[in-house]
Amino acid sequence: MPNPKLPLPIIVVVIIAFVITSFPPSLAPQPSNSPSSSKWAPRFLGKFSTTTPKPRPPHRQQQQPKIRYETRYFAQRLDHFSFTDTPKFQHRYLINTEHWVGAQRLGPIFFYCGNEGGIEWFAENTGFVWELAPRFGAMVLFPEHRYYGESMPYGSEEEAYKNASTLSFLTAEQALADFAVLITELKRNLSAEGCPVVLFGGSYGGMLAAWMRLKYPHIAIGALASSAPILQFEDIVPTETFYNIVSNDFRRESSSCFNTIKESWDALVTEGQKDNGLVQLTKTFRLCRELKKIDDLSDWLDSAYSYLAMVNYPYPAEFVMPLPGHPIKEVCRKIDDCPDGTSTLERVFEGVSIFYNYTGQAECFELEDTSDVGTDGWNWQACTEMVMPMSSGRDASMFPTYDFNLSSFEDECLKNYNVKPRPTWITTEYGGHDIMVTLKAFGSNIIFSNGLLDPWSGGSVLQNVSETIIALVAEEGAHHLDLRFSTKDDPKWLIEQRETEIKLIEGWIEKFYQERKADFDM
Amino acid sequence: MPNPKLPLPIIVVVIIAFVITSFPPSLAPQPSNSPSSSKWAPRFLGKFSTTTPKPRPPHRQQQQPKIRYETRYFAQRLDHFSFTDTPKFQHRYLINTEHWVGAQRLGPIFFYCGNEGGIEWFAENTGFVWELAPRFGAMVLFPEHRYYGESMPYGSEEEAYKNASTLSFLTAEQALADFAVLITELKRNLSAEGCPVVLFGGSYGGMLAAWMRLKYPHIAIGALASSAPILQFEDIVPTETFYNIVSNDFRRESSSCFNTIKESWDALVTEGQKDNGLVQLTKTFRLCRELKKIDDLSDWLDSAYSYLAMVNYPYPAEFVMPLPGHPIKEVCRKIDDCPDGTSTLERVFEGVSIFYNYTGQAECFELEDTSDVGTDGWNWQACTEMVMPMSSGRDASMFPTYDFNLSSFEDECLKNYNVKPRPTWITTEYGGHDIMVTLKAFGSNIIFSNGLLDPWSGGSVLQNVSETIIALVAEEGAHHLDLRFSTKDDPKWLIEQRETEIKLIEGWIEKFYQERKADFDM
Repeated sequence: MPNPKLPLPIIVVVIIAFVITSFPPSLAPQPSNSPSSSKWAPRFLGKFSTTTPKPRPPHRQQQQPKIRYETRYFAQRLDHFSFTDTPKFQHRYLINTEHWVGAQRLGPIFFYCGNEGGIEWFAENTGFVWELAPRFGAMVLFPEHRYYGESMPYGSEEEAYKNASTLSFLTAEQALADFAVLITELKRNLSAEGCPVVLFGGSYGGMLAAWMRLKYPHIAIGALASSAPILQFEDIVPTETFYNIVSNDFRRESSSCFNTIKESWDALVTEGQKDNGLVQLTKTFRLCRELKKIDDLSDWLDSAYSYLAMVNYPYPAEFVMPLPGHPIKEVCRKIDDCPDGTSTLERVFEGVSIFYNYTGQAECFELEDTSDVGTDGWNWQACTEMVMPMSSGRDASMFPTYDFNLSSFEDECLKNYNVKPRPTWITTEYGGHDIMVTLKAFGSNIIFSNGLLDPWSGGSVLQNVSETIIALVAEEGAHHLDLRFSTKDDPKWLIEQRETEIKLIEGWIEKFYQERKADFDM
Repeated sequence: MPNPKLPLPIIVVVIIAFVITSFPPSLAPQPSNSPSSSKWAPRFLGKFSTTTPKPRPPHRQQQQPKIRYETRYFAQRLDHFSFTDTPKFQHRYLINTEHWVGAQRLGPIFFYCGNEGGIEWFAENTGFVWELAPRFGAMVLFPEHRYYGESMPYGSEEEAYKNASTLSFLTAEQALADFAVLITELKRNLSAEGCPVVLFGGSYGGMLAAWMRLKYPHIAIGALASSAPILQFEDIVPTETFYNIVSNDFRRESSSCFNTIKESWDALVTEGQKDNGLVQLTKTFRLCRELKKIDDLSDWLDSAYSYLAMVNYPYPAEFVMPLPGHPIKEVCRKIDDCPDGTSTLERVFEGVSIFYNYTGQAECFELEDTSDVGTDGWNWQACTEMVMPMSSGRDASMFPTYDFNLSSFEDECLKNYNVKPRPTWITTEYGGHDIMVTLKAFGSNIIFSNGLLDPWSGGSVLQNVSETIIALVAEEGAHHLDLRFSTKDDPKWLIEQRETEIKLIEGWIEKFYQERKADFDM
């Protein structure tokens, strides 16, 4: 809870301004009567990171355990898969060796696969790895993902994001190769070639961790892939999955909450089409500037619901925003508990205020500036490899109905980035179809952990594939909750889930030592 | 044996001219007193293929069973791993569906990973796959490797091989991605997504098959990797391995043969340094043009010995040259059986004549033209990814002593191709170090078959890694003999080896059907 003695309006406004300008512009559902082009691109949480440290109320800084690391840079090849003459870039990574038992004792290396944002933010929000390191005598590495944070090709973000040609090396394959080269070189320099590497990752980082274990089994002995929707491609899972899970998160709290939100989209259109309607909406939603079109507002609402579903944690957290525990329960309480006669739109405003203004410090709200689409790394990835088709159905979803339309999506990508998506590439490169058959006889040592409240869980692996490719499913879990620092409020199931993960990782490491010993003794 | 009634001097001269101009220029050992730069690049047999069909004496054409296929082309992306705007190229593949039981019955697809040469030649020399297809009701696919045969980016060989920039996409990773995209698209078009794919490959093609199974387990259920030296990188195996095996192939026939060859390098230098020495050597070795430097001749001799070791088959064959069965035995007999008083150099000339002129039709010999190094695809690959360090020691080798020197090698690559090798990339991308530990708990369904007479066997996998990653080792085998058409002269061990391979492949396919059925029944 915010400390009432410390009003910090300036800082809070900065946070809110950041968050709302960083929403992907092309993601929101369209009011049902204006079926839109291809607005439903995938959304992860990486955009909540910043290249500069995010301001945070001082009393809250103390809640989160401090992490210590050294920041280093590695001259990384821009293109690993061809011999074109491209300049190297400075690949940033965070390293901590204070608990490492060293190369001679084959101390493990815990390697977090950096995802779509500045790496410090992921390091700060992946407490599990930091808590585990002393227990395992492990080195901790957090390499950044290329084209995010400070790891900018061509010397600057401006140059790196200039056009499709400079952006063209922003792919998952290149990022995995960065990781592979970095860890190989680092181990060589430390004479630590024999040390086992364990991969960690959440969300897109979890996808990278799983794929890295599959593609580079000689580099890492196992991977904990938390909330990693590696099946959210093509038609592997139904396209409605994501928004159905979001919707269900609200319906399970209260069906009237679900219904109010479901009705609100039409109400929005009706209101907006009135004379002076946009001005009225501007007032109802306390926007800082006059609303230009209804879409901008529906994007803003949709974003709040989707992110709320991801961070629907059982205790107060500040991962993306300062939020209470069980935030969706709070949102629905706000929506449902309004006095009789409160309009649908006033109710949803009260609801999303839990997300956008839990501290109560915001004077007004800035909607996202959609003019600079081209500078968003994840949107580029969504427009190239990470084509995750999403739609919204008539009944199970509280969002406006929407069908994914590949050709409109392609048009948008061409317009925004001058690039054509390759919607079947990810499954060609990493698989996904028939994963239960494909991986049963191949691969080992991957944990897919998921919380069923997380809308991304629908595109992840929710069943054990084999004895060593394990699915851990938590009914009450949200987006990679297991990777966060432990807290005194952790529910029992979360404590147990983490213990299971630790046991599995211990097993990988023990087996590795045994096999190495057997090989050595031969 | 050549038919004496059919003298075919013109055709034979064409063959010989082809072969001797296609030897890599920078491969030969240097006389011990002139330690050379970096001449020992890896050599495979792919350069014996041509883009135009190789002429062959008509009576021999009938010895080889006819194969039937359709030639098709697929518009393939030049760069799979970035979104740069590069033109597509026509990727050639050979296809035969006459024995395929079809998509509905989940007919298997036998997929040969094309290597460094025109694909027809590999198709013709991989009879095992053709013989197996009817037995398994399988489709047969022989996709070509990019930048070889007709699969030329930029429309022509001339354009593709223009410079380092146009050549930059000639990498194993891009070739594997070609294969992955091709088979995925092809299966989609045939509604054959459920059909199991089995990979085959020999030599570099065998490396590709093994790597493809490791990197694309969702695409192929298993791989027969014949004579695939995936460990011939960095210091994984001793750098002397290759030339020691070649040497041993000669020593096991006769130690005097081994000694004569070992002495010949110094004799060559002594002779060449005499007044008129090069003229005399030109005469002794029946060269068509006057010898310009001793190196060219030692390259020519070294090539003969190395290739002889690879194709040291137990029956007459025309894989790279018309040769008798057990050709090294013949070479040594020639060397040893010369009348007393025959000089060392005259003896080795008699010996290598078995290789270069077994039909006896050659009037004179052309040494290799080293002026157009830059047009050899495999040399480009050796100068970029496929850095296989090789050296020649003092005792076990019959070749001049030679140490691999990376920096001289790099200089040569810079000079020839304007490219800098990445000697540690292959092991970073595919592994290799500690393969017994790394793959024990990961991966399945790979057969590494090798013949110990083959100098490449030293860099291959010669021990079972796990229950499903199997090494088949034939003491009397040479370079991917198992992949050739069966003949009436096949020794018993070869017949048995192939039967084992067939049983293993059957096992993969049966297990695949069972698992698919179990998954379907669930």
